[in-house]
Amino acid sequence: MGPGRRGRAVARRERTNDPEGLRRRIVEVAYAAFHARGYHATPLDVIRREAGVTGGAFSHHFPTKKALGLAVIRDRVARTVEQTWIEPLLAAPTAAEAVRAVLAGTLGELERRRAVTGCPLSNLALELSLHDRDFRVAVEALYARWRSAIAEKLRADVAAGRASTRDPDALATFVVAVYSGGMALAKASQRPAPLAACAEELVHLMNGPKGRTSATRRR
Amino acid sequence: MGPGRRGRAVARRERTNDPEGLRRRIVEVAYAAFHARGYHATPLDVIRREAGVTGGAFSHHFPTKKALGLAVIRDRVARTVEQTWIEPLLAAPTAAEAVRAVLAGTLGELERRRAVTGCPLSNLALELSLHDRDFRVAVEALYARWRSAIAEKLRADVAAGRASTRDPDALATFVVAVYSGGMALAKASQRPAPLAACAEELVHLMNGPKGRTSATRRR
Repeated sequence: MGPGRRGRAVARRERTNDPEGLRRRIVEVAYAAFHARGYHATPLDVIRREAGVTGGAFSHHFPTKKALGLAVIRDRVARTVEQTWIEPLLAAPTAAEAVRAVLAGTLGELERRRAVTGCPLSNLALELSLHDRDFRVAVEALYARWRSAIAEKLRADVAAGRASTRDPDALATFVVAVYSGGMALAKASQRPAPLAACAEELVHLMNGPKGRTSATRRR
Repeated sequence: MGPGRRGRAVARRERTNDPEGLRRRIVEVAYAAFHARGYHATPLDVIRREAGVTGGAFSHHFPTKKALGLAVIRDRVARTVEQTWIEPLLAAPTAAEAVRAVLAGTLGELERRRAVTGCPLSNLALELSLHDRDFRVAVEALYARWRSAIAEKLRADVAAGRASTRDPDALATFVVAVYSGGMALAKASQRPAPLAACAEELVHLMNGPKGRTSATRRR
């Protein structure tokens, strides 16, 4: 995760020429560390060292650990939500197909990696929601964005006759919960299997017997 | 959460007469603190103070923070899993009815409380699974117990003709994921509503059109 000698040289150059690039590098390193080890378990000087930044430059961008935590959620975790969920939702023909594709992609990635680090948003949500109100509001805004993107797609599916869903908002919340919970189980077992089981149940439920989002399952 | 003056007097007596009682008190205080604030964010001396215990007595029972963390998971979180899930599963006529009753009970409790602290097992699972192998194994054992109790009940339901389920193990994993994920969303929003939406979807799915566990939903 550390940038190594070349990384530090780049960091030094960026500190002079590219303060935005340096800021992004710090956020990237902090995102990886908070995601894998947790916010409280990661000392700031570990992030400083891994990003190859001087204390002065670091404090200039992030005077407090909280400021860095908020930037990680608002900038970097938000980007993960966009790339992992929002873009596939916009690209897929239906919400059901987007959910299937996202879960297949996530499972493929878990199979390739050695460690299951879990969902970055859920990790930080559970650790920080009660710790600080600003953290909680930042986390909740991303969950809201994620849920409303799924609900919107479901409503469009219903309007176009591509799905029948009792309550798009409830089903969207359900999808996010299944993904978050399935990731928690995968992280606890360090195997993708629990998320794979959840994916199968969820896709089955959303596709139904006629390929519709109607939650029907028969043996 | 602190025991107050009376609590400390009790703690002093227990230290002399009842080492097991003192140990239980420390685990109880640590459980509440780790659940609400997190393992890493809770300093040991806060737990010592809240439990009203001397440093010597504390170290006698728990020489390290890790030893205390493991005791919290294996003794106290395990008890929560038994009381919240395993006992209702044994008492209910079907798995679907147990899931409905547990979720209704949890939602009622969330409505009464001021803060949504989330699922104790998921909180510790996400924070500690990558931090330490022993923590991960302890957490995974509880998830396994929880999932297998649901799967066993589903199999009994199927055998008795009270439910039809494609894959009891996958559906059991799915139920645990929905509960864990719904609690994460409720914690992030500090409202029971997301868990209520998940509960409605899940109960609908498990009951199906003929009161069977067959995941059927129609508008």
